Amino acid sequence: MKYRRSGRLVDMTEYLLRHPHQSVSLTFFSDKYGAAKSSISEDIGIIKEVFEQKGIGRLSTSAGVSGGVTYIPLMGSDEAVHTVEQMCSRLEEPSRLLPGGYLYMMDIIGDPQWMQKLGRIFASCYEKAQVDTVMTMATKGIPLAYAVASHLRAPVSIVRHEQRVTEGSLVSINYVSGSSNRVQTMSLSKRSLEAGSRVLIIDDFMKAGGTIRGMMDLAEEFQAEVVGAGVLMEAVHEHEKLVNDYVSLARLDKVDARGKKITVRKGSIFDS
Amino acid sequence: MKYRRSGRLVDMTEYLLRHPHQSVSLTFFSDKYGAAKSSISEDIGIIKEVFEQKGIGRLSTSAGVSGGVTYIPLMGSDEAVHTVEQMCSRLEEPSRLLPGGYLYMMDIIGDPQWMQKLGRIFASCYEKAQVDTVMTMATKGIPLAYAVASHLRAPVSIVRHEQRVTEGSLVSINYVSGSSNRVQTMSLSKRSLEAGSRVLIIDDFMKAGGTIRGMMDLAEEFQAEVVGAGVLMEAVHEHEKLVNDYVSLARLDKVDARGKKITVRKGSIFDS
Repeated sequence: MKYRRSGRLVDMTEYLLRHPHQSVSLTFFSDKYGAAKSSISEDIGIIKEVFEQKGIGRLSTSAGVSGGVTYIPLMGSDEAVHTVEQMCSRLEEPSRLLPGGYLYMMDIIGDPQWMQKLGRIFASCYEKAQVDTVMTMATKGIPLAYAVASHLRAPVSIVRHEQRVTEGSLVSINYVSGSSNRVQTMSLSKRSLEAGSRVLIIDDFMKAGGTIRGMMDLAEEFQAEVVGAGVLMEAVHEHEKLVNDYVSLARLDKVDARGKKITVRKGSIFDS
Repeated sequence: MKYRRSGRLVDMTEYLLRHPHQSVSLTFFSDKYGAAKSSISEDIGIIKEVFEQKGIGRLSTSAGVSGGVTYIPLMGSDEAVHTVEQMCSRLEEPSRLLPGGYLYMMDIIGDPQWMQKLGRIFASCYEKAQVDTVMTMATKGIPLAYAVASHLRAPVSIVRHEQRVTEGSLVSINYVSGSSNRVQTMSLSKRSLEAGSRVLIIDDFMKAGGTIRGMMDLAEEFQAEVVGAGVLMEAVHEHEKLVNDYVSLARLDKVDARGKKITVRKGSIFDS
């Protein structure tokens, strides 16, 4: 179908947004719209400028016969800080306090729009890590993991505590939960992670980091390489950490259960 | 920031795609770009035409002082049928066969791109149902539920078998799994579903429908109204169904474990 520039810009924008981290050739667009490559090139220039000015992401272009364009979803650091600070003040509402020093966070985790935004922050941080798979722990890590994975165009491997019949053969390991000091089991379907994969671990909450440590060990069982780990929230001070290489979006600084005061501040991903 | 039409079209397209089912006023865009409302109106006309021609969705516009535009993500029926048929033939690969008549589906469920596409089919089907919340069962229903919810701009309520300390007070019910005839428990955090909400139930796999039935009963405990139920795959023939009002994307017709033959065909959402 032939389109004028205005129509092409709308359709190309939609197409690129839906295909992050994927090189699209000029030929593809040129055939799609029955337009000369030089026009397509100009279109891409326009989209690139807007995406960069508006903090939507980067369009990385390559020249030559195999010339193409790749959309890299990013969130600028100002917007990232603003987003996380907004979340932090919501998380300081005293009504969230739960027994055991936990916070009720399901309203944030349950909101796909929040997950998309937070996922874009991690996707920006790991844009160059060549992530093949995002690994997470059921249940509450899943929404954020999918948001990150959709921006990195990677599949998700879901690690579970229980063993289910619907996933075929499993690889299981025991690990020690750092906060409770209990030995637990985690399993991952044998088919759901390829040897040699570059793995990004994503989870919702970290106390001592036993679960993250466990997922790192599990990845090793699959001969996969962990290229990073990110958590939505870490509880600081309380526990000696079992992992070093991780970033957090927010830090749960202090929970004063008697005074009903929660202190949440932005996480280590913003340290530099 | 002032933009020419070409720049506006790119940015408005991105903005609308990121804010589905949300009315955006012409004034908002007019202020955002420092452009006359008449120009914004023309821009929207262009986007509308492309979105409709390309099956991206509908732009619904309202006139008057509070005039605005709402993007409704849709998938045309040809593309929906094509997408599901592609999935069906992948699901017929004999290597997926698991003990108990289950199929390995984690490669599909683990792929955010697949989930987004399938989620758009359900979002098209329920576009007018005024869904307030998407309810699902942990673990494997979650990815599809988020995809549907993100297209309908609704939050997700995650029902669980186990009870966790991190979700505060719970409402629990017992239900009978129709296929195993066992009594099980499912729980939902009290805070995660408001009375009077219009609930869409989404799950990955349905045999007799005991889990869906249970979620319907659970919604009733919250005085919420179930406006629909959708599953990725239903196993037909095997079991008498405990629910009537549901749609499926695909049907697992027959599993011949000895002959290693799986028959999957498109689901009831395409019946008419």
